[in-house]
Amino acid sequence: MEIHEYFPFWKHLTKEQQNRLSYSIRERKVPKGTILHNGAEDCVGLFVVQTGQLRVYTISDEGREITLYRLLERDICLFSASCIMSGIQFDIAVSADTDSVLYHIPPKIYQQLMRESAAVANYTNELMASRFSNVMWLFDQILYKRLDSRLAAFLVEEMELQETDELKMTHETIAQHLGSAREVISRMLKYFQNEKIVKLGRSSILILDEKKLRETASDSLRL
Amino acid sequence: MEIHEYFPFWKHLTKEQQNRLSYSIRERKVPKGTILHNGAEDCVGLFVVQTGQLRVYTISDEGREITLYRLLERDICLFSASCIMSGIQFDIAVSADTDSVLYHIPPKIYQQLMRESAAVANYTNELMASRFSNVMWLFDQILYKRLDSRLAAFLVEEMELQETDELKMTHETIAQHLGSAREVISRMLKYFQNEKIVKLGRSSILILDEKKLRETASDSLRL
Repeated sequence: MEIHEYFPFWKHLTKEQQNRLSYSIRERKVPKGTILHNGAEDCVGLFVVQTGQLRVYTISDEGREITLYRLLERDICLFSASCIMSGIQFDIAVSADTDSVLYHIPPKIYQQLMRESAAVANYTNELMASRFSNVMWLFDQILYKRLDSRLAAFLVEEMELQETDELKMTHETIAQHLGSAREVISRMLKYFQNEKIVKLGRSSILILDEKKLRETASDSLRL
Repeated sequence: MEIHEYFPFWKHLTKEQQNRLSYSIRERKVPKGTILHNGAEDCVGLFVVQTGQLRVYTISDEGREITLYRLLERDICLFSASCIMSGIQFDIAVSADTDSVLYHIPPKIYQQLMRESAAVANYTNELMASRFSNVMWLFDQILYKRLDSRLAAFLVEEMELQETDELKMTHETIAQHLGSAREVISRMLKYFQNEKIVKLGRSSILILDEKKLRETASDSLRL
């Protein structure tokens, strides 16, 4: 895939702006586990995921992590360039979940384009709004509904009842049990899968990490 | 104060854009308690606080509210115009904390200006980043550090020890007791004050709502 295909604003840039962006971009191969960004003081720049997967998370003083969201192919990591906006004042870390190939854009180049081009600035707005929505969803589920621990508790119970670590049940059924909606359950199950707690199959759920599942059941991810 | 003084991007607009914005703005007086925006389906537009105070909060299914942040004079309420960005998909509500005088900007007009002007788009970016930071701070304190309940528990204990509801102690002293930083304690105390749990004076803290303080102490704001 060509560089410009990653940027919906490409066609709104002048030839000179396109060149400036192209020339500044470097490909970067990072092995699994690489920490790309750590805290608000860091400002390495933007990353575009060509292949692989990045994880964006926060770390408590005690070292406990909560995954906020994951970035997959074609996604753009904005907060590793937190210095491009003065309003951003929170600490998150970004690491490579798998071996990944990334495009790196220097923060100054991107910031300059944002100032020059409404298309770039609005695209950045949409990116941030969508990340904000991810985070709000997660906190809403954890803080209010404790859906993480309720879902985990339900899975533990079913494991014990069915005496197996491969549960045969649909997301719809779980939603009915928990008084939730199928979409919400599917999303939280996917979150669990990303955290390597479960593996989702066709109408089955394989428990990979019973210990973490039990911890989550008794105490919610937030602790 | 003139309308244009509220908008740092004003001087970057063309005369025509300035007129379009000016003509679309209406003053709106709202009594205390008015709900201005409720959920992602709503898209009433942007509000600029002339006088008064707005509260931005989320509501759980059970009706429990958590205040995310407050908007004071000169602040701009962006999320009441959530339709201007497709990425925004979360439900918040906005209400008037006090009798307020607001400027109202229709969402379509603002959205059009954002598309035309990089200055408007970047300003909107900064607004969103700053709100995002507020929310991340709050969740970080509640989820990880349970600072809300630890601070409340400390204040309850001091009330009982000192046998008074007007505690004479500095934020620095509290920070030392809780192993935190003065800035963090001051910010959380201010949050409590906004929630009408305490009233802060010169080196004193008056407990206004002992019941809510005890609830927070035993269970954190998140429950």
